Formats: sequence, structure tokens, C-alpha cells
Amino acid sequence: MRPLFLAVLVSALLSASVPAWPAEIEPLPALPPIPADNSMTPQKIELGKMLFFDPRLSGSKWISCATCHNPAMGYTDRLPRALGHAMSEGPRNTPTILNAAFIKAQFWDGRADGLEAQALGPIQADVEMKQTLTQMVNNLKQVPEYVTRFKEVFGETDPITPGNIAKAIATFERTLITPDSPFDRYLRGDKLALSRDAREGYRLFQEKGCTACHNGPVLSDGNFHHIKVPGSVDEGRFKVTKNPADLSAFRTPTLRNVELTAPYFNNGSVNTLEGAVVVMGNEALNTNISRKDAVLIADFLRSLTGTMPKFDYPDLPYTRY
Amino acid sequence: MRPLFLAVLVSALLSASVPAWPAEIEPLPALPPIPADNSMTPQKIELGKMLFFDPRLSGSKWISCATCHNPAMGYTDRLPRALGHAMSEGPRNTPTILNAAFIKAQFWDGRADGLEAQALGPIQADVEMKQTLTQMVNNLKQVPEYVTRFKEVFGETDPITPGNIAKAIATFERTLITPDSPFDRYLRGDKLALSRDAREGYRLFQEKGCTACHNGPVLSDGNFHHIKVPGSVDEGRFKVTKNPADLSAFRTPTLRNVELTAPYFNNGSVNTLEGAVVVMGNEALNTNISRKDAVLIADFLRSLTGTMPKFDYPDLPYTRY
Repeated sequence: MRPLFLAVLVSALLSASVPAWPAEIEPLPALPPIPADNSMTPQKIELGKMLFFDPRLSGSKWISCATCHNPAMGYTDRLPRALGHAMSEGPRNTPTILNAAFIKAQFWDGRADGLEAQALGPIQADVEMKQTLTQMVNNLKQVPEYVTRFKEVFGETDPITPGNIAKAIATFERTLITPDSPFDRYLRGDKLALSRDAREGYRLFQEKGCTACHNGPVLSDGNFHHIKVPGSVDEGRFKVTKNPADLSAFRTPTLRNVELTAPYFNNGSVNTLEGAVVVMGNEALNTNISRKDAVLIADFLRSLTGTMPKFDYPDLPYTRY
Repeated sequence: MRPLFLAVLVSALLSASVPAWPAEIEPLPALPPIPADNSMTPQKIELGKMLFFDPRLSGSKWISCATCHNPAMGYTDRLPRALGHAMSEGPRNTPTILNAAFIKAQFWDGRADGLEAQALGPIQADVEMKQTLTQMVNNLKQVPEYVTRFKEVFGETDPITPGNIAKAIATFERTLITPDSPFDRYLRGDKLALSRDAREGYRLFQEKGCTACHNGPVLSDGNFHHIKVPGSVDEGRFKVTKNPADLSAFRTPTLRNVELTAPYFNNGSVNTLEGAVVVMGNEALNTNISRKDAVLIADFLRSLTGTMPKFDYPDLPYTRY
């Protein structure tokens, strides 16, 4: 064979069988990364769970983290844009916190690095929980069981601090992972864990180039990409960096459990997975994804729903009056 | 012994050992009364649990029954008066629904007879979930899994109706009972299940006459009594009957799990159990209960906390768009 012909053949084979981008999708690890200064102890997980469910962290004492990150709905609110204090509407869609521990950049615009840095944001936001850190700390100090538990967990003389509250909540969030999805079983060798349609969807997902951004164990590169979905006027990452290159750039969201977290995108403008796939084709990949292919890709995406974390409701302790 | 002396002796013994009112406090039965037209099936319990946790029953799609009847806080909100739609404040304190199945008259003013009649009230109230029954039904009909489940449970051709929604929620509520409190174990013969102080508190509770209204398995006679607590301008039962005799009359609340449901009374005006006991002495029994006795009675009341119902979070199904 002449070298030119060989090169053309190889190229043709590559374009037919190898994705345009390397796949690099991995099964979900058993544990997410754990910061060296915030060890995961059972007592800290339990305390974090209590705080996550406790409305006394909010200014109204009526809204908890779990109000919008609702465990019954994939840890989202299934609303286009988040509601919060006085039922005011925030500018963005509530992201799931399932497997958020695997991504460093938090929030749609990545304005926090890691779960600890993220945790105190919604507590203080006027359209979310609308509480000051000082008042929150004062309120929690009136709960004798919290005083005891914070001392046990953190071993300090005055342990109820915003930083420790964030550490405890982040530790609980590190337990909110969803292993053993059909796709994980497929990656581990159980080829029948996916339907034929879902397998074809996975092939298309790679072929179309979705894995350029949606890769790694949670199908997010944790990085920022320009994506202006219908109806969005959100400046995205630009609000954080003031760098014009970051205008309308958002952090790639995880696709794990994505079937549970409709509606989609930063403004919650698309209700269905199939619709979201088509929009992403146009906006992110500059390609028209046919309805038929979108249905197959959506079938693949539904295979990313894992086992929900199970735990007992916390029994929240009393405030001392 | 002479007959007169005997009579005096018996009378003295009675006044020392027998409460001023018959106690009639009973251990919590394993099951509450179940209406003949709403049988308790596992499928109906599960459906009712889903509806109880589903914010799509509200006008905002953000507030569920569980928002205010928070399982983490004794199925109350621990606020003086309930917050609801747009965070507006209602006129009354959120009652617990733990063991509510044992009482016929529902709401503080008894305006609903039974759980089925109660369930649709908060959904429609402007200061609670603010939804019309028609819109609620339309929203649920867009959830394919609800269509299937309602058909399985009720076996009708068009089963998603306000009446069936109420029946399912009421059925779930009948599982929210709290058996095996220390006091139940005491009543069943384990005398050491109560501390000495709690036993003395129980004696005082009977002696002071609390059992006149707080009797039966949930320590409520289910009846209405005039009780005007500090700061209350609430007309109570009068709003329902327009009978002047019912002015400021409220249904006796259960005392089971009362330590979990502060603050107390129709207006949530008292934060502590001890304080509530003193107020009840003044307002309901026309007697001054000393601080010392109130502490003992509160010790007894804390023995009424039973085993919380445990269940997995429902996974709420999707709306079809």
C-alpha cells in the first residue's frame, strides 16, 4: 500500500470508530477527594446532615439546604430558577449536590473552590437563605446539643464557627454520591447493563464530541465553557473574573443523575433531556443533533442514574430559651 | 371500725391516691382508627408519602406538606406561627401530625373531621400552599408515574381526584405514630421507664386536673375548651360554629412528643414546656402551678416522646413535558 492511501485509510477508520475526543469517562469512585484539613468522621457526617436539614441556618428559620437541594428530587428543586427567602426567585437553576464532591469549581460560575467554600454562599444570599454568618452562629450556639456535638467533632473551645459549619456540611455532602448506575456496571464489564439504545446513545455521545467537556467520573471536566442557551442573559463566569473571554461561560455540570434534575441549563429553560441534547449540539458543538440521535443519547444519559444515598432523617435538637 | 370513720378514711385515701379527674391515659395502640372507606394498603401508604413530600401539590411547586410538618422537627416547623406561600405568616402554630390519626377533630379549631377532610385545607390556604384543587389535579396528571400509581391504588378510570389525594395522604399520616415512649413502657408495667421526677410529675399531672382534657391514648380528649393564652386574640372554635360559647375555644392538642414541638399554644407564644405548664395552670385550671411542680410535670411530658417513624425518602417521579 502506498503511504498516502494508508494514511487516508487510517484516518477513515479513526473517524468511523474513534470518538472525535477521548472519552475518559470513568466509573464513580467509592469516595470523592477529601481535603487534608477536613477529615471525614462519622460524627462530622452526622453533624453535617443535621445542619443540612436545619432551617435554623436561615434568616427565616424556615428554609434549609434541603429545601432547594431536596433529597426527594435528586437534590434539586425541579424549578427553572431557585426560589428562596420570601419566595423570591434567584437568577439560576439549582444544581444537584449529588456527586458535587467530585468537582472543585462550585456554583454555575465556579465562584467557590470546593464544598467548604461553597457551603456558606446560599446561607447568606438574599434570594436564598438570607442569614448573616454572625446571626447563624449565635442561633446555633443556643442549641445545647450543637454545642456538644461541635466540641466532639472539632475539639476546640469555641467550635461553632462559620468555617466549621461549612466543614461539617461539606463532609455530609461527600456522602451524597450515587454509585452503581447501569453505566458504571457497563463500564465494569456488564455489557447488558445498558440497553442497545443506550449503548448506541453512548457511542453517539462520544462521536458527537460531548465527552470534550463531559468526561471524568462525574462527566464534567470541572472547567468553564461558553454556552448561551435560549433565553439566557446570564454573564456567567464573567461575573467572577471580569474577563471578557468568560462571558456566558459556565462550569460543565455533572451528567450523573441528570434524568432527576430537570429542567436544564443555567436558566432552567429546557424541560426534557432530549431537548437539552439538541440545544447542546447547537450551542456547544455547533452541530445539529437529530431528534432520533437525541433520543438515543438521552437513553444513555438515563443510565447515569445511580443508587441514591439512604439515611435516616436527623432528629434536630432544641433551641434553649 | 365505725362506718363514718371508714367513709372518712376511704375519702382521705381517695384524695391522696386518686386523681381529681379520672386519668384514662392509655398506651398508644399499634394502629389508629381506619375509616371503612379508606383501607390502609402498602401501595396507598407509599403514594401518600410521595404526595406528602411533593412540592408540586403547591401553587409555587416549592412547598410540600413536609415543609411545615418537617419530619426532622417532630413534624412541625418550630416557629411561633406557620409560614407559607411567599413566606407569609399564618395566624396559628403548626400542629404536629404525629399521632393526629387518633383524633377526629382536626386543626386548632376542629374545622375538619378526620385526616381526609383535613388534608386539602392547607393546600388551598393562601398563607400555606396556595393552590387550587383543579390546578393541583392537572399538575399531578402530568406525572405519568402518579397516573399509574393512582390507578393501582384506587382502581378507577380517572382516579387522580382531590378526594383520592386526600385519602392517600391521610393513609400515610396513619403511619406517623410514635409507639413505645418511656411513658408507654411505664404504663405497661416497667416502673423504671420513668425517672422518679417524671413519676412525680405524672402524679401532679393527674392531681392538678390536667387529665380532664389531656386523656386517652394521645392525651387529648379531642374536644374543645376555652383557653386564652397570653397575646392571643384568636376567636378559635367560634370561627367555625359562630356560637359565642366557642369563643377562644380550641381543640385539646395531643401531648405526645410535646417536647419536640415548641413553641406552644395556638399562637406559639410560649417557648418552654415548663412555661406552658404554668400558663395552662392559670388559664385552664385556675390554679397556680409552682415552678418546682412545673419542672416535674415537664419531666413527665418528656416521657411522652416515642419512637419516630422511619422510612426512606420517596423518589418523586417526573412531570411529563
